[in-house]
Amino acid sequence: MKIYDWPTGPYPARVRITLAEKQMLSKVEFVRINLWKGEHKTADFRSKNYSGTLPVLELDDGTFLAECTAITVYLDALEGNPTLTGRTPLEKGVIQMMTKRAEIEMLDAISVYFHHATPGLGPKVEVYQNREWGLYQRDKALRSMHYFDDLLRKQPFIAGEAFSMADIAVIGGFIFAAIVKLPVPQECKALLAWYAKMQERPSIREQLAIVSPPH
Amino acid sequence: MKIYDWPTGPYPARVRITLAEKQMLSKVEFVRINLWKGEHKTADFRSKNYSGTLPVLELDDGTFLAECTAITVYLDALEGNPTLTGRTPLEKGVIQMMTKRAEIEMLDAISVYFHHATPGLGPKVEVYQNREWGLYQRDKALRSMHYFDDLLRKQPFIAGEAFSMADIAVIGGFIFAAIVKLPVPQECKALLAWYAKMQERPSIREQLAIVSPPH
Repeated sequence: MKIYDWPTGPYPARVRITLAEKQMLSKVEFVRINLWKGEHKTADFRSKNYSGTLPVLELDDGTFLAECTAITVYLDALEGNPTLTGRTPLEKGVIQMMTKRAEIEMLDAISVYFHHATPGLGPKVEVYQNREWGLYQRDKALRSMHYFDDLLRKQPFIAGEAFSMADIAVIGGFIFAAIVKLPVPQECKALLAWYAKMQERPSIREQLAIVSPPH
Repeated sequence: MKIYDWPTGPYPARVRITLAEKQMLSKVEFVRINLWKGEHKTADFRSKNYSGTLPVLELDDGTFLAECTAITVYLDALEGNPTLTGRTPLEKGVIQMMTKRAEIEMLDAISVYFHHATPGLGPKVEVYQNREWGLYQRDKALRSMHYFDDLLRKQPFIAGEAFSMADIAVIGGFIFAAIVKLPVPQECKALLAWYAKMQERPSIREQLAIVSPPH
């Protein structure tokens, strides 16, 4: 299998954490797509993923799988031992919901802020920017940190009692927040404590070392 | 189970089509949340779904499930006979990807157009609008119709050889396109032929009769 990714991208990091959790990092060949040169927006790359985003998983049969959730569902199902996407119908549903919520409220919102209200990937790649929309999404992301903080006062993980793909999505949010210098507010104690605890997992600690700016 | 929904909403229609496909419509009590009065944006409703969107499924144990994909994954897994979300790892992954693609490129893009570049749900509900962003998303949705048209020249369904949740997501796009009067271009012959074929399914024909403006 091949993964098209870029080492410091928050979305690619989600799939690398997933691969590490599934002990599959060594089974994958990584192909670098340079975000800063806009290689993910070329016609050639869009023939692999119409949406022009990273990461993309290429299977040995030539199938291209894009979207972190889709890739994670595939990888987690491969050996019949799902550890990240739920075993029961209820677990599957809640994990899907919380992963999507982490995306729309936090990770994707920070991404929009980055691409629209900061220089983003630079003028050659960011051919259209809507600064007001970017700032609006930044504020939405900040509100979501308080939501996740409240949630984590009541339960140990984003989707309930067990680590899942939803936790990895919020970690993606933390990674992007660090890139755009949008720190999680200090009063979000439960959220910050959860993030510290997440880093006890080797899969996460090792991938964070690749993406996060050193202090 | 309860479903919080609104009869003419495109997203609620996706879950009602799913329920009809699974022969479960009669097992659900429907609770109306009036979109036009902004009842989905109240603090009470946000305690059920932080994102303030419809539909939401309430289980008998009090769990609230939001997000169409999450609800569909739950319902499709309930009786151990998945017919909409895939049986093999590859089917699951591709269906997840294509559902997400239908959302971000078409359905969600039309929703942003509706809420930001048209009167949307009216001035009391649309407390912030970004018209330029709405128009940008409208154009993105129009481009996606050509993408899906190309795709359907090569395969019978959105995710490949079988009907799935991804087809239902594109039907949601058609429903919203009708509401905002954004017709699918006539040259998208494969996409229009697919949509006509979709309406041979009773689940879809019956729900379209509820949501679609009569000609």
